[in-house]
Amino acid sequence: MRKIYVIGIGAGDPDHLTLQAAKAIGRTDVFFLLDKGEAKDSMIELRRQLMQAYGRPGRRVAEGRDPDRDRTPADYPGTIADWRHRRAEITEALIAEHLRDGETGAFLVWGDPSLYDSTIAILQEILAQGETTFEYQVVPGISSVSALAAKHRVGLNRVGRPFQVTTGRRLGEGWPSEVDDLIVMLDAQHAFDAYRDAEVDIYWGAYVGTPDELLVSGPLAEVADEIIRVRTEARAKHGWIMDTYLLRRRGA
Amino acid sequence: MRKIYVIGIGAGDPDHLTLQAAKAIGRTDVFFLLDKGEAKDSMIELRRQLMQAYGRPGRRVAEGRDPDRDRTPADYPGTIADWRHRRAEITEALIAEHLRDGETGAFLVWGDPSLYDSTIAILQEILAQGETTFEYQVVPGISSVSALAAKHRVGLNRVGRPFQVTTGRRLGEGWPSEVDDLIVMLDAQHAFDAYRDAEVDIYWGAYVGTPDELLVSGPLAEVADEIIRVRTEARAKHGWIMDTYLLRRRGA
Repeated sequence: MRKIYVIGIGAGDPDHLTLQAAKAIGRTDVFFLLDKGEAKDSMIELRRQLMQAYGRPGRRVAEGRDPDRDRTPADYPGTIADWRHRRAEITEALIAEHLRDGETGAFLVWGDPSLYDSTIAILQEILAQGETTFEYQVVPGISSVSALAAKHRVGLNRVGRPFQVTTGRRLGEGWPSEVDDLIVMLDAQHAFDAYRDAEVDIYWGAYVGTPDELLVSGPLAEVADEIIRVRTEARAKHGWIMDTYLLRRRGA
Repeated sequence: MRKIYVIGIGAGDPDHLTLQAAKAIGRTDVFFLLDKGEAKDSMIELRRQLMQAYGRPGRRVAEGRDPDRDRTPADYPGTIADWRHRRAEITEALIAEHLRDGETGAFLVWGDPSLYDSTIAILQEILAQGETTFEYQVVPGISSVSALAAKHRVGLNRVGRPFQVTTGRRLGEGWPSEVDDLIVMLDAQHAFDAYRDAEVDIYWGAYVGTPDELLVSGPLAEVADEIIRVRTEARAKHGWIMDTYLLRRRGA
């Protein structure tokens, strides 16, 4: 039987790695890397650094090319489902070609594999096809959300209250009902900008945990322009950005 | 200046510890432990084990008695605020008595300090009083939510969709609007039971990551009775329970 680890490696700081993740890396024969074809060199570099530090001698790396996808599709779920399906095909071919019976493979996932990552769903899709079989195990990681909250030294929730984790796309459709604390992921459109006249505080961060980390917090009315400026400059400089923020309605 | 770390130690598995947390433990002179006066021996035991493994020679432990609180109060936020205030007083006295100038103290927090934990708010309350001063830093940890999702090998979100993190108390007041995926914390009343006739799947876990781990998942209609039975038995056996679950509306 083949075994595959889905390993959360944390949000960018090499010291986010857990002991469990380090041990799983040390038991891995084949690391699967999907090259995003983008300038995310620092993300790939962190993976190489962790394999170097904790990997066993003789480990191998199997690289595939991530399929391109439309970043601003009209049909978002349909486009993602199609992209995931093509990604599953590429991933299945990598596993079939490179992972031998009795060996252990691994995917090193940024942040936590349970949060806005497709690796688990892709492995389930491959297994559902029935052609390629393996066992798999998920190793949790420090999410970008936990890392953001830690750097700003805030709780995600207020006492006995709920919070919602959502996307920039969803926030663009309106503030959700019955909740005053929002974590927003994947916001390329500055959806927070629609709430600058509301009584809202923001805790924003990009590349959290890395040497390029950027943090801005304060009343949204006062810092919205700064976040847009900092974010735009950073994206131009690095060629990509990964940012997250907490929006907190005051006095609620 | 005195320094205090708020260190997330993960959800129960000693290997959830991050390298960052292990290093922070190694730099700590005084560990602050609040004894809950309950039979949570395994939680205290994990902290002692981590201090032993990663702590520096000569480290000290300062123990305080956690104030009692009403577990089923009529005024929940008011009761928690009062309890937190008494806890802040006890904590401030511990810091003032045991942490000398130039030294580093630490609180070892179960899970992640940003998720339904009061340590950060207590330190902020102490600093706001202005009597006792220190710097502080938060070290993120593997949350019970990430650990639960990893063990069940599920994503917390579905593609491009939001999820809400809430409490059993809130769920008892009704399923929140506009969201089909709920993470429920602190549910002593089996609030999920009200949804057993709905098209809902549940992924439940208790003591996740520890040798006492319990996991049950499936259609809520089929497993609700089993969860209630397993949960009741485990709580009686251990004297306490820490459980969490994901509720997922099917086909939404």
